[in-house]
Amino acid sequence: MDNDAVLSLLRSVRDGETAPEEAVLLLKKRPFEDLGYAKIDHHRQLRHGIPEVVYGGGKTAEQITGILGAMRESGYGSVLVTRLDSDKAEAVNAVVPITYYPVPRLGLLGELPAAATDGVIAVAAAGTSDLPVAEEAAITAQSLGNRVERLYDVGVAGLHRLLSKLDVLMDARVVVAVAGMEGALATVIGGLVACPVIAVPASVGYGANFGGLSALLSMLNSCAGNVSVVNIDNGFGAGYLAGIINRIGERRQ
Amino acid sequence: MDNDAVLSLLRSVRDGETAPEEAVLLLKKRPFEDLGYAKIDHHRQLRHGIPEVVYGGGKTAEQITGILGAMRESGYGSVLVTRLDSDKAEAVNAVVPITYYPVPRLGLLGELPAAATDGVIAVAAAGTSDLPVAEEAAITAQSLGNRVERLYDVGVAGLHRLLSKLDVLMDARVVVAVAGMEGALATVIGGLVACPVIAVPASVGYGANFGGLSALLSMLNSCAGNVSVVNIDNGFGAGYLAGIINRIGERRQ
Amino acid sequence: MDNDAVLSLLRSVRDGETAPEEAVLLLKKRPFEDLGYAKIDHHRQLRHGIPEVVYGGGKTAEQITGILGAMRESGYGSVLVTRLDSDKAEAVNAVVPITYYPVPRLGLLGELPAAATDGVIAVAAAGTSDLPVAEEAAITAQSLGNRVERLYDVGVAGLHRLLSKLDVLMDARVVVAVAGMEGALATVIGGLVACPVIAVPASVGYGANFGGLSALLSMLNSCAGNVSVVNIDNGFGAGYLAGIINRIGERRQ
Amino acid sequence: MDNDAVLSLLRSVRDGETAPEEAVLLLKKRPFEDLGYAKIDHHRQLRHGIPEVVYGGGKTAEQITGILGAMRESGYGSVLVTRLDSDKAEAVNAVVPITYYPVPRLGLLGELPAAATDGVIAVAAAGTSDLPVAEEAAITAQSLGNRVERLYDVGVAGLHRLLSKLDVLMDARVVVAVAGMEGALATVIGGLVACPVIAVPASVGYGANFGGLSALLSMLNSCAGNVSVVNIDNGFGAGYLAGIINRIGERRQ
Amino acid sequence: MDNDAVLSLLRSVRDGETAPEEAVLLLKKRPFEDLGYAKIDHHRQLRHGIPEVVYGGGKTAEQITGILGAMRESGYGSVLVTRLDSDKAEAVNAVVPITYYPVPRLGLLGELPAAATDGVIAVAAAGTSDLPVAEEAAITAQSLGNRVERLYDVGVAGLHRLLSKLDVLMDARVVVAVAGMEGALATVIGGLVACPVIAVPASVGYGANFGGLSALLSMLNSCAGNVSVVNIDNGFGAGYLAGIINRIGERRQ
Amino acid sequence: MDNDAVLSLLRSVRDGETAPEEAVLLLKKRPFEDLGYAKIDHHRQLRHGIPEVVYGGGKTAEQITGILGAMRESGYGSVLVTRLDSDKAEAVNAVVPITYYPVPRLGLLGELPAAATDGVIAVAAAGTSDLPVAEEAAITAQSLGNRVERLYDVGVAGLHRLLSKLDVLMDARVVVAVAGMEGALATVIGGLVACPVIAVPASVGYGANFGGLSALLSMLNSCAGNVSVVNIDNGFGAGYLAGIINRIGERRQ
Amino acid sequence: MDNDAVLSLLRSVRDGETAPEEAVLLLKKRPFEDLGYAKIDHHRQLRHGIPEVVYGGGKTAEQITGILGAMRESGYGSVLVTRLDSDKAEAVNAVVPITYYPVPRLGLLGELPAAATDGVIAVAAAGTSDLPVAEEAAITAQSLGNRVERLYDVGVAGLHRLLSKLDVLMDARVVVAVAGMEGALATVIGGLVACPVIAVPASVGYGANFGGLSALLSMLNSCAGNVSVVNIDNGFGAGYLAGIINRIGERRQ
Amino acid sequence: MDNDAVLSLLRSVRDGETAPEEAVLLLKKRPFEDLGYAKIDHHRQLRHGIPEVVYGGGKTAEQITGILGAMRESGYGSVLVTRLDSDKAEAVNAVVPITYYPVPRLGLLGELPAAATDGVIAVAAAGTSDLPVAEEAAITAQSLGNRVERLYDVGVAGLHRLLSKLDVLMDARVVVAVAGMEGALATVIGGLVACPVIAVPASVGYGANFGGLSALLSMLNSCAGNVSVVNIDNGFGAGYLAGIINRIGERRQ
Repeated sequence: MDNDAVLSLLRSVRDGETAPEEAVLLLKKRPFEDLGYAKIDHHRQLRHGIPEVVYGGGKTAEQITGILGAMRESGYGSVLVTRLDSDKAEAVNAVVPITYYPVPRLGLLGELPAAATDGVIAVAAAGTSDLPVAEEAAITAQSLGNRVERLYDVGVAGLHRLLSKLDVLMDARVVVAVAGMEGALATVIGGLVACPVIAVPASVGYGANFGGLSALLSMLNSCAGNVSVVNIDNGFGAGYLAGIINRIGERRQ
Repeated sequence: MDNDAVLSLLRSVRDGETAPEEAVLLLKKRPFEDLGYAKIDHHRQLRHGIPEVVYGGGKTAEQITGILGAMRESGYGSVLVTRLDSDKAEAVNAVVPITYYPVPRLGLLGELPAAATDGVIAVAAAGTSDLPVAEEAAITAQSLGNRVERLYDVGVAGLHRLLSKLDVLMDARVVVAVAGMEGALATVIGGLVACPVIAVPASVGYGANFGGLSALLSMLNSCAGNVSVVNIDNGFGAGYLAGIINRIGERRQ
Repeated sequence: MDNDAVLSLLRSVRDGETAPEEAVLLLKKRPFEDLGYAKIDHHRQLRHGIPEVVYGGGKTAEQITGILGAMRESGYGSVLVTRLDSDKAEAVNAVVPITYYPVPRLGLLGELPAAATDGVIAVAAAGTSDLPVAEEAAITAQSLGNRVERLYDVGVAGLHRLLSKLDVLMDARVVVAVAGMEGALATVIGGLVACPVIAVPASVGYGANFGGLSALLSMLNSCAGNVSVVNIDNGFGAGYLAGIINRIGERRQ
Repeated sequence: MDNDAVLSLLRSVRDGETAPEEAVLLLKKRPFEDLGYAKIDHHRQLRHGIPEVVYGGGKTAEQITGILGAMRESGYGSVLVTRLDSDKAEAVNAVVPITYYPVPRLGLLGELPAAATDGVIAVAAAGTSDLPVAEEAAITAQSLGNRVERLYDVGVAGLHRLLSKLDVLMDARVVVAVAGMEGALATVIGGLVACPVIAVPASVGYGANFGGLSALLSMLNSCAGNVSVVNIDNGFGAGYLAGIINRIGERRQ
Repeated sequence: MDNDAVLSLLRSVRDGETAPEEAVLLLKKRPFEDLGYAKIDHHRQLRHGIPEVVYGGGKTAEQITGILGAMRESGYGSVLVTRLDSDKAEAVNAVVPITYYPVPRLGLLGELPAAATDGVIAVAAAGTSDLPVAEEAAITAQSLGNRVERLYDVGVAGLHRLLSKLDVLMDARVVVAVAGMEGALATVIGGLVACPVIAVPASVGYGANFGGLSALLSMLNSCAGNVSVVNIDNGFGAGYLAGIINRIGERRQ
Repeated sequence: MDNDAVLSLLRSVRDGETAPEEAVLLLKKRPFEDLGYAKIDHHRQLRHGIPEVVYGGGKTAEQITGILGAMRESGYGSVLVTRLDSDKAEAVNAVVPITYYPVPRLGLLGELPAAATDGVIAVAAAGTSDLPVAEEAAITAQSLGNRVERLYDVGVAGLHRLLSKLDVLMDARVVVAVAGMEGALATVIGGLVACPVIAVPASVGYGANFGGLSALLSMLNSCAGNVSVVNIDNGFGAGYLAGIINRIGERRQ
Repeated sequence: MDNDAVLSLLRSVRDGETAPEEAVLLLKKRPFEDLGYAKIDHHRQLRHGIPEVVYGGGKTAEQITGILGAMRESGYGSVLVTRLDSDKAEAVNAVVPITYYPVPRLGLLGELPAAATDGVIAVAAAGTSDLPVAEEAAITAQSLGNRVERLYDVGVAGLHRLLSKLDVLMDARVVVAVAGMEGALATVIGGLVACPVIAVPASVGYGANFGGLSALLSMLNSCAGNVSVVNIDNGFGAGYLAGIINRIGERRQ
Repeated sequence: MDNDAVLSLLRSVRDGETAPEEAVLLLKKRPFEDLGYAKIDHHRQLRHGIPEVVYGGGKTAEQITGILGAMRESGYGSVLVTRLDSDKAEAVNAVVPITYYPVPRLGLLGELPAAATDGVIAVAAAGTSDLPVAEEAAITAQSLGNRVERLYDVGVAGLHRLLSKLDVLMDARVVVAVAGMEGALATVIGGLVACPVIAVPASVGYGANFGGLSALLSMLNSCAGNVSVVNIDNGFGAGYLAGIINRIGERRQ
């Protein structure tokens, strides 16, 4: 409930159209409906201007189906479900049709919109094993209407691969850099470009990788000043945040 | 050396003005001068459009003075020195005059520019003890020409303090959220605003704080999708990155 | 064996009714029976005035059935079994009938008593995935006769959800706050209420969550002074302790 | 601002005494004054019924003096300053007279009130080295008007010491258990008493103590169900929380 | 090869019975046979006077069968196999008959000898879930000919259980204390007895237990001076070492 | 593209055979073909003179088959696939015939070459459980044409086993030392030989082993100056690096 | 108060010499005097037959002087003070004369007794930097009347140094092995001897030593079955425990 | 004592020149002299062909002076002292003249030899703050007679700096790569060169650097196969090992 709505309410109190006691209740009225296990915030889409996202990780197929059904009925154009295993996706799809992306394990209610931005988000990944995380970032950003360029298998141990893509990197408005193991990709890209770089540590690797900790620490300690970091394997967060930043550049047109 | 310069060089080879052997050398020519202990990259200011930064943490007053002197002679308008202790600052200032900010321990060669952006960077800090980090972020952003609003002592254990500043937060183009201890500020702000939030864990606290680890992990695990994180106490990085993001919105005017 | 009993025994020694050698043995007599693999402490219910609890985590269905059978025969009205998988529950139930709660994986021998307290325990959970832990706390507290209010899906990234429940929180005598990921819920609630808050870190999440470590550290570092913490996923402990604290307020009636 | 005040305001809007636009501003009006470096929340004492507390750890003597002076002028009867080194205490005392407790490094503006509760808080400490933390808890609780019993040097490696104090423990309404090293005291007491036990890990020790981590983990894993934990060395938090719990028992008289 | 054997060899060189070149080879001759995947040290039984032990954890049933067969043929009276899953045990038993103990997952080639010591090893365990580790210690010690007393379910949260066994503890020559979670049992026993206590952290528990780390750190930080620690879940090591220590007391008879 | 090639290109620009614009493109031309999911670097074999290696850990059988097929067609004589499970190996082999080594889970496209070096690489392993890692190192080194000597089951708890192999160790040009648990093998060998020792921590063990961390830290802290360390379980890296070092000694013949 | 004393008391109750009410009090009478900051347990020397030990680490010179004075008056023949800095030692010595050992920072009230055991404790140390810890163990053991042999600078990177002392090691009844860095000494000795080995990790080193963690983990993971571990730098504990074990062998004479 | 010496001894036994009893003693004779606090191994220089090294970190100036004096008298040409603070260096130099290098805190007894190898060791460092570690590596390698090339300030955030030195890197026989913070330098260089790369994590940085842990993990997880790692800040080890590897290439001339 924004300032204008409060003002309207107060004016209707002044004008005797609303009783003060009633207004107290209205000021408290909650902007969400209650499903018992999860509250859907219909106002969020208005405030953020972006599709709703459902974290599928700890939820059953039934819970996801219920949430998606309720949202579809409430008129949501586009809902993204993350960490959706293929068998759950199948069960959900039987009730509420969704598009399923197996590599990043993403489900999408609604259409993937056409790219609507001038600015480009470059999604770079160090190795083949980083693709699930990188694709989660890329499709998330696309679902928000962004233009996305994919630069895959550009790990820094073969530097010429990355350097051959320098033009794409330098033209990007934001870069998402996904890397496991030593996580050096984020710093090397950070030194090459002038735009923000969102680093995503991947849990790819073994041994002293400690589930992505090595890449996480490496990225947090980047000596490039334009690098910030999201959680290990959080491709969704990186794609989402990249989309927000990219839209800043669109805003003034 | 950009594409155009290479093309010019190749054309001068074609035109017989430059010998191939000489061109090989020119292609390799290094864009920096050598001080022995640190190489200053004069091209960086051109590429990034921002002032040079010197990390003062591991350097002696003599090294810093030498670097600043060389940069001043090379015509740098504005150089920031981070992690500069007050006694080193005094020693540097005796040779190369700088402005010194004791709270964030920053030294500035040149003037703090007037705010030149429409967009505002809000720098929020949870407690009094977080001020050194928050001020490092704020002054860094200001040194890049950004408008900055400071929201201090808005820790989430007294939520009304933060909510009373909601207007400033909602008007910002980027928010920098500095917090030690449980680091919840970043997530709470992330849920309130639609813009990017750069979270800075502060090493403030004791016990199970483990030098900022608690706030770091808390921020990385934020359930708000618009939050990314920089290193513990890295106010400089947050201010720098916030400046880059803020300028994206200015670009199109 | 309390002071009075010792005094009685000594008096019977004085009166020649009990031999000193026999009294030495009696002073040592053990107040429990021996099943071989686990000793049931029949005195505990008397001392604590609460039902017995069996940790089902590391025990076989046979062991649990044996323990419950022995306790039922000893006249226990109410026994709670925690961490009881549904298949074990089924096997136990075939021999000793129990009520089974699948979400928190709790088994209950006996009836869930009616709420017998004036004071209310509010159990708040940040997200849908925290429900198993939150329900473990809620049902444990209910099994001890407490009135419980559930506030679910009130994570701090959507602050209005929590604030809409402010009345319930402020009326509670104790709050249990369950949250995974960044664990900020405990601190935010701690700042809103004046009563004790028992924080339960949940192992929900991924990546730098490290099995609940991020929420644990966050909660331990809470800047709200009325927050204490139990082990990760320890809903039982939180519900049990909340019940003890709630009963302190009932005591004087 | 509570429901009644809002209702009054809305009635005055209805009655035309307050303009809607003015009411919007009043609804947002902030309940604290701004010192620049720290905001004092005058409402807090009302809400929580307890003295204000200033964390002295990261503040200069000047900042502390300024805050205490402002609070004294605002009519605060009792303000506690934690982590106050003796030299800072001396500097503060020269301007704003305080009572200083050197062992727990606490400063108190105002008088230590007489014990005003029937219920007793027992503060138990394992060894001589735990006294600073234990005294921080004890004096904090006393400053809140609680009756406190001190049980010092009752470490579990000499069990008879603890058992000789069983009467005091069993009569307490809350126990604060402070222990470093292996932290076993909290669990042993938790098994002996039926009331809540607040465990405080102390950073006392060396080697694999890792700054209190061993005691912290030990206490979090306590197999006694009535134990919760606060941060390492957080005697203040334990004393404060113990006071809140103790007052629950007083409330009904 | 001991000093006497070397002297004999050298004398045979002096006497011309052995050529110097041959003696060089003999001095190097290896006291074990080569199976390809594991070398059995036939001398070890002589040197240590104890049965051979095979760590079954990382080995296939075939490898274990091969090793046991070779040892049986070499005349070993008693061989212990640790970490032997029941299905592997069955496969081994089909070829080389062994006695299998399912709780501690131990296999024994040969007979469990009768207790041959005056001294007693007390094996104490905190809870039912610690039995696998405690039994591994107990049967290992028995397989070495020691008298063993089992004290199970004597966790310190119910102190009277432990104290009721004080006589057994005080009569023991060595105590093995097995405990997971907070691991306090070792310290409490250490304070009660004057003999060596070998502490075994068990990985029993969840959450901040971190796979036995909490008990491990707790035991290493024990304030009882007669406690030393072996690896998490290392019941074998504790039983073996207890046996060695117990035999020191037998030696002088 | 080396200096000579650049010079040739520049000469052809000078001679008018290549247009400058075309030369710019050629200077950027990428030396690899694009399969979509992984880029094969055909130049790498030339630069390093060694076979290509495919990390099979995070790849499907289909991806591996595709990569091997493309490489075979490009004329690669020898390709090693690491971390290849036996079922994947079978699936790959049905399409592209490979030799499969089950213990180290290695697949080899092409023949294992005859040993072509004078220098010997000694691969030492502490226990039977370390064989998978040790064999990964040994076969990797052999696939690079090196002579390899295996010294297995030479753990330092039975020192005579290792000392009996002293001659082999002292004759080696490089030693690879594989050990889990306490990892002492690397240091003991480091003190015995004068050549480089590459230490490989193995994740063999349990409890406070923490997945190889104990051996890793032990090896990093070796007080022998000729020891360096690779990642936990990284037999491939050790064998590869040992091969490079061994070839340095061959170079001058 | 042991069984006999209780029996005597009960008999005097039977005989009418002691009233039951008085006996209740006597049964509770505490066997220690109260200094306010530390309770001295006069019974301990009787129970353990060993000198009292004062941990000097967290205590002031005044506290230590007070404790030692009280103990001397109570007739203690021998009191050891650990972690006693030289300046504190000087202050203590001015009031209560003590012998001070600067390397292990030990103070001794009373005489170092002559060696009174047949059995020998061998104290082995890897390097010069481990001497403080090794000497703490050696002098502690000597203060308990044990014969001690010192084997210093026998680190495993120079194996011949250790092997040259094999006779001493093999004759010992217990070995204390002190080592920092990679901590391999304990395992190597454990494999050479048949007696118990008490391993003491030393915090000597830098980098990935992490304050002794590397040696601690290494020792806990020892593959020698006769090794147990005490806390990092806990020379006192090792010497004390070695003395207890050594005395087991003396007992039967 | 090598094989030939043993053979000679045995022959002299055969020839009756040496009694068997005497030979037993000779076989055990120890090749070092005893200073009490440190044993100098005169054979080591022979075995390894390199100067002796003294770790100065945990030693007093007196101990170092004593060791150096004894070694000088024993005829050592060159002794390196690491981790030597400038004040200790001054004290040592007053008795035993040494050359002192303040940046890497190295002391050298004897002359720095002229470079005697064809092969070159390249020592690369990411930033100015890494110089102490890099210089420790460089001077150590030089003290062993190696040719060394220094490449300083070539951090990967400014990739052109490193690429401008490609020729030097590609000509090197071994590379030492020193980097703190994100430690990416080792991987990037590893991908560029075909020779062995010894990575040295530096403890330079702050926050989530955790004393060099971030660079250490990053380097251990390097996806370049020719990289191995030494301890944090262990410039000495890297320079020493690089020297050993470099000499392998010299050996065959």
